[in-house]
Amino acid sequence: MPAATTTAATAATAATAATAIATTAAGTAGVIAAATAADLPALRLKRHEERRLLSGHLWVFSNEVDIAQTPLNRFRPGELVRVLTHQDRSLGVAYVNPHSLICARLLQSAELPTAQWFVARMKLALTLRQRLYDQPCYRWVYGESDALPGLVIDRFGEDCVVQVATAGMQALLPQILEALQAVAAPRRVLLKNDTALRGLEGLPAQVEWARGEPGTATVIENGLHYSADLEQGQKTGWFYDQAANRRRLAAYIRPGARVLDLFCYAGAWGINAARLGAAEVLCVDASAQALAAASANAKANDVTLRTRAGDAFETLEALGQEGARFDLAVVDPPAFAKRKKDVPAALAAYRRINQLAMRVLAPEGILVSCSCSYHVGAEEFQGAIAKAARAADRQLQILEQGGQSADHPVHPAIAETRYLKAFFCRVNDALS
Amino acid sequence: MPAATTTAATAATAATAATAIATTAAGTAGVIAAATAADLPALRLKRHEERRLLSGHLWVFSNEVDIAQTPLNRFRPGELVRVLTHQDRSLGVAYVNPHSLICARLLQSAELPTAQWFVARMKLALTLRQRLYDQPCYRWVYGESDALPGLVIDRFGEDCVVQVATAGMQALLPQILEALQAVAAPRRVLLKNDTALRGLEGLPAQVEWARGEPGTATVIENGLHYSADLEQGQKTGWFYDQAANRRRLAAYIRPGARVLDLFCYAGAWGINAARLGAAEVLCVDASAQALAAASANAKANDVTLRTRAGDAFETLEALGQEGARFDLAVVDPPAFAKRKKDVPAALAAYRRINQLAMRVLAPEGILVSCSCSYHVGAEEFQGAIAKAARAADRQLQILEQGGQSADHPVHPAIAETRYLKAFFCRVNDALS
Repeated sequence: MPAATTTAATAATAATAATAIATTAAGTAGVIAAATAADLPALRLKRHEERRLLSGHLWVFSNEVDIAQTPLNRFRPGELVRVLTHQDRSLGVAYVNPHSLICARLLQSAELPTAQWFVARMKLALTLRQRLYDQPCYRWVYGESDALPGLVIDRFGEDCVVQVATAGMQALLPQILEALQAVAAPRRVLLKNDTALRGLEGLPAQVEWARGEPGTATVIENGLHYSADLEQGQKTGWFYDQAANRRRLAAYIRPGARVLDLFCYAGAWGINAARLGAAEVLCVDASAQALAAASANAKANDVTLRTRAGDAFETLEALGQEGARFDLAVVDPPAFAKRKKDVPAALAAYRRINQLAMRVLAPEGILVSCSCSYHVGAEEFQGAIAKAARAADRQLQILEQGGQSADHPVHPAIAETRYLKAFFCRVNDALS
Repeated sequence: MPAATTTAATAATAATAATAIATTAAGTAGVIAAATAADLPALRLKRHEERRLLSGHLWVFSNEVDIAQTPLNRFRPGELVRVLTHQDRSLGVAYVNPHSLICARLLQSAELPTAQWFVARMKLALTLRQRLYDQPCYRWVYGESDALPGLVIDRFGEDCVVQVATAGMQALLPQILEALQAVAAPRRVLLKNDTALRGLEGLPAQVEWARGEPGTATVIENGLHYSADLEQGQKTGWFYDQAANRRRLAAYIRPGARVLDLFCYAGAWGINAARLGAAEVLCVDASAQALAAASANAKANDVTLRTRAGDAFETLEALGQEGARFDLAVVDPPAFAKRKKDVPAALAAYRRINQLAMRVLAPEGILVSCSCSYHVGAEEFQGAIAKAARAADRQLQILEQGGQSADHPVHPAIAETRYLKAFFCRVNDALS
């Protein structure tokens, strides 16, 4: 438990954050006006629109609301409500955003989301991670899957990165920060609120330190140490979702292996491979900053890798022309399909990058092919890899299919919480 | 390479097997009559029916054959053919069964499947397993996924179990046994040909030792030793497909855990749990023989478990009434849906067994829930587990989704090669 002085410091931090929020476009209040949940205004659904929610989903879409009885435009973005079925059955507390297609998200609670309420949810999420991880480096809170819709918290030991995706969570930021302080008393807290989703909620991009001085964090993952640039790095600064898949490399790397790490970012795949005995590791990224981080991380772990700056597609073409061959290639690109309408182009890009990768794979080489595009399903993604194999005249065997690490649990009723696919394949020569 | 004497012995074994085959209902010859693949009779497809095959699938369905030009009833079960598109493009060698819905299976080859041809395919399959396993205990050949349609070979060190599912492979058994001897020279070879699929091919159930004296085999899996009854045991005597999922238990078992292993068979899940530090392990199976094997295997690994004979559903009901609580439960039943029409009943059974299991799980307990029913897709199976959680008033987080082990690779164009689903879930109390 935090000492009294710590709590006071938190309150001050929270107050600062609340002031920042009050100046945003969303204009949410940052305090809970109601005394009890019963005092919250009602949001009434149309007849039969409770079905999906009763099966466990947490999202209310704007066309499901009975706007004759409870007009959405009467609510402020982020305002707390009680959701009622058409027959007045309560579905619990939710927060609202009248400007969003997802106009409300249920909190699976009959109570107000006070700081103490957040403490309980955060502790429930924490026991899972503490059970599974021997280091305090993980996604501590994964939104809807941890019953905290719209909130992500990544933990880097004593540092935490908070991402808020919705006006509702933005309004509750004081409570969140107070709870965070009460549960873990982090040294530093970065609000990394620059995700594209915020635009849909009418929230501005904001990156600010809610606690502590700016600085880099340390990740300990699978026994390796990395430096993570929380403020300037991609997303929250680290891709914890791939930790379990990187651990799977142990089964596939043979001593002396030649390994290619495409879209390498801070080098974690390549550094794992090198530590597992790979003789040559080539890390490719378009960002010089990423390659510098990869090199520094390699050095910190006492392993060697080469880096090559460039577009992954072009670099693969060039490697093919140079006659380079690898025993294992990791293709871990950013999401090619950020929206549903991007899917056809994304599938073509996945096919192309995998085909190029197969062309530089030695016979019986291993391809680790990933997609973090939610909109591209596992079956479609597998189809793209299979097409790539046919175009490259290789025979493919899918050995293992990994998803996101267990600190990104899937909510069984919310398909959107499952997004990462990592196919481990053997790529043989064509049969005869 | 085998000594000359070994090869002679193999030839004798093969001859015996061929005699056995000649007496079967299928009445296949057991020898390849053609001198070269060009001498094989043609099987011609209807216009446009080559599409699925060109995308990598290996099965020809009877309604896709141009029976005007190449009547199916002219072929004997198991006969080798050349498959031609309607435009006379060759799709390579296949074997035929005019009595089966899948009337031909492509061998992905322009050559005749001689013993040497089988040697090459078996070696390609073997390099994968040798790469991934430190012990010679695995599914060595997994049918279509290893480009050997209709053939399964499980390896238990020096012992091999061969399963032949089709008349085509049955006719090639002499070549298979000769190749097996050439590549691995096993001490014992059991033909465990009692699968239900053989009926569809007009093949009789036959279990016989093609080589060596009857006896039990040893499995070394994840560092544990088990005795496997190849002849009397289920399937080939061991479920290698779950080896990778059993290895995943390491992340979930805490010292002192109370573990329930339902449908325990020879106790492998429970023994892994005990070895990982579980304080109490209860193995449940309807078969006294299975429980005796589980106890013997536990003893051999110097761990303790309790057994309880009974139907899993009834035992779970009883355990619930007794107030038993477990920290982790494994639900690994036989396939509830053996045919497509069984799916609705199977989903109801999966829901019920998982609901009962959740009722005996402690708060924040771990449920490992498996389905090996091909006809029940991952999404449907997840739906059944989610329904079970709602009925049990528990909140579910899916932490990890495992498939079959890498010695059962998935063929990217043949959905039927993927069948095993293992969901690792945390089962929390209902939120408030």
